Amino acid sequence: MPVKPARAPLADRRASGGMALLVVDMISAWDFPDADKLASAAIAIAPRIGALKQRCLRAGVPVIYVNDNRGRWRSEFSELVRLSIAESETGARIAQGLRPQGDDYSVLKPKHSAFYATPLDLLLRHLRASRLLISGVASDQCIVMSAAEAKMRDYEVVVPSDCVADQTRARTSRALRHLREAHGIETTTSAQLRLPARPRASAK
Amino acid sequence: MPVKPARAPLADRRASGGMALLVVDMISAWDFPDADKLASAAIAIAPRIGALKQRCLRAGVPVIYVNDNRGRWRSEFSELVRLSIAESETGARIAQGLRPQGDDYSVLKPKHSAFYATPLDLLLRHLRASRLLISGVASDQCIVMSAAEAKMRDYEVVVPSDCVADQTRARTSRALRHLREAHGIETTTSAQLRLPARPRASAK
Amino acid sequence: MPVKPARAPLADRRASGGMALLVVDMISAWDFPDADKLASAAIAIAPRIGALKQRCLRAGVPVIYVNDNRGRWRSEFSELVRLSIAESETGARIAQGLRPQGDDYSVLKPKHSAFYATPLDLLLRHLRASRLLISGVASDQCIVMSAAEAKMRDYEVVVPSDCVADQTRARTSRALRHLREAHGIETTTSAQLRLPARPRASAK
Amino acid sequence: MPVKPARAPLADRRASGGMALLVVDMISAWDFPDADKLASAAIAIAPRIGALKQRCLRAGVPVIYVNDNRGRWRSEFSELVRLSIAESETGARIAQGLRPQGDDYSVLKPKHSAFYATPLDLLLRHLRASRLLISGVASDQCIVMSAAEAKMRDYEVVVPSDCVADQTRARTSRALRHLREAHGIETTTSAQLRLPARPRASAK
Repeated sequence: MPVKPARAPLADRRASGGMALLVVDMISAWDFPDADKLASAAIAIAPRIGALKQRCLRAGVPVIYVNDNRGRWRSEFSELVRLSIAESETGARIAQGLRPQGDDYSVLKPKHSAFYATPLDLLLRHLRASRLLISGVASDQCIVMSAAEAKMRDYEVVVPSDCVADQTRARTSRALRHLREAHGIETTTSAQLRLPARPRASAK
Repeated sequence: MPVKPARAPLADRRASGGMALLVVDMISAWDFPDADKLASAAIAIAPRIGALKQRCLRAGVPVIYVNDNRGRWRSEFSELVRLSIAESETGARIAQGLRPQGDDYSVLKPKHSAFYATPLDLLLRHLRASRLLISGVASDQCIVMSAAEAKMRDYEVVVPSDCVADQTRARTSRALRHLREAHGIETTTSAQLRLPARPRASAK
Repeated sequence: MPVKPARAPLADRRASGGMALLVVDMISAWDFPDADKLASAAIAIAPRIGALKQRCLRAGVPVIYVNDNRGRWRSEFSELVRLSIAESETGARIAQGLRPQGDDYSVLKPKHSAFYATPLDLLLRHLRASRLLISGVASDQCIVMSAAEAKMRDYEVVVPSDCVADQTRARTSRALRHLREAHGIETTTSAQLRLPARPRASAK
Repeated sequence: MPVKPARAPLADRRASGGMALLVVDMISAWDFPDADKLASAAIAIAPRIGALKQRCLRAGVPVIYVNDNRGRWRSEFSELVRLSIAESETGARIAQGLRPQGDDYSVLKPKHSAFYATPLDLLLRHLRASRLLISGVASDQCIVMSAAEAKMRDYEVVVPSDCVADQTRARTSRALRHLREAHGIETTTSAQLRLPARPRASAK
């Protein structure tokens, strides 16, 4: 059974409500400098992101894992997932409710921003997504940069305040304030997010 | 065993002689429109690219598979390789001498150019590669665009004339002439390419 | 009288029919290597581009001068126009019917492609332009690259065959054939182009 | 007298000490929403940026005005300068010590970041500049984004704390803390900056 033809049908399915969920840098073996300072906070938000992801999938909102390429420069996201579980207790705990599934999209990023040197902008246009929920770590680095760059690209952006984490709660608070104050980005709790009611349309 | 830390050591190994080999769009299930017109030519060049790849590996020249993402928008190159072999006789034949190996890099591109919405430029800088050998298909689309954009980005570019293919030999001839005439890109045979003599330095 | 506020009103006016005309590299002092080989052909197409420009302006189709920055790296298009006329007889002759006017847009490009390291893509989205007429020089360099990259970005592209020029007619013929054959780009004469009938909407 | 040939000599002069000074969004008619809240702070930092600029020019450090295009999408920086002085008392006061001069570079940006859809990265590479001093307004928007993106692109970045301004001192303090904490960017006073001792080399 052939995969999709190369060029023509760029679209899989249109994003329900024009919305997409980004899960940033949650897949990791947690072996980078100061990873231990971030690990427990990441473990804490993982179930909340996992719950949000399930709501998104039910609502037809596509889920995109945007993850550091870990300096490997190979397009092998499954391998990163496998390693994160095999090599790290933290990684294994996070994966319990947040493991990428068959329908999820994946984008590997070489640097902090989800948009820099990646196909994310093109993927979002192909999904007709114009409203982004951005979750993950670290609040004041990859989250702030990705959210600010999304806003600059005219996406509507919401950063659910209980779905991002940093080394300390204070840093997360400062990051959220910065997003609100400098970029007018909404930061509400995931429980208060309204997702599209309409179920995912049948694949076009 | 941890993977590499996230940020710091961007470099694996420095490209020997500042050279890198790109293998463009050779991994495919050959199920796109008019794929049959290109398949036999692709099968014909595969062993020559495979031989060039082996020379490159011996010389410490990194090999980068730059491949269409096939409209899947997932960073799963191994899966593309597996499908190309499982689902296509052409794919299986091409893979015989050209199957990606553990050390090879992979970049998935959403469109024709190897540079558009991909991390290729950043990967090449990280490898300190400034001289590109560009091979693969199709001569007058992805090869011409990738080679012209590489030149525009100040890379030295060579397109080995016997390592690119198109639906007809005439189209390949026209593509090669265009690269020489408009962009001053060298098009020689792979047999006449000089690779760096110096073996790969020990991994840093 | 204040200029426009900084952020909010990105739009001037919406492009009539979603169409825009690009005039590539026609402003020059013609002092680069081999400029003399291109000058007479550029002089020959200038009135035809000028006539097409007037039709565009009447139809509400915006005109964008996309011009080499001439290695100056300063955002001073008027100065380039002035120099091209003051320092070059060719430049003065071309400017007769093709001089930029108050309503025209200008984009300075540092390299061959109209899209590389420029705001062109963003300007076109802001004008809601999705159909491009691409004119100018040189057929097989800046025109081919800009047209191919526009197509890759999902613009519809027409290259009017009598509004592009190269050092020889044969090179232009090859360039036009390449655009048709490799990229499915239409190459018709400017006389046969259909422009939007609807006049420009009042400025919003 | 011909301007520079188009392609070949990209370089004007190499940046002394590999350093460049960016002056962000200081040229304005100050007519955007809430401009009045920012104007007095901008007037206050203008002489300090002006003094830093003079030190830079003496040391051979190139100065690049990176400025909002004001929604005009025309490459006419001089016109923006002229309007800013003619139409705004604030603009006129700022221009007193900070008016762009013949040797200064100019980059017009359509959005917040100095790098997005602009030739800045290419200009910096052409100047061989790898160390950036970033000054201007507003601290927590264009300055934070431009500095973070510069860091992500592997530039060394210093943001002189007395040469950036925001609507309130508190916002500037938060912006500077964010740059230090999240990105490891140095924020010192302009008086403490060490510039290259070596005078500008004769033009190469």
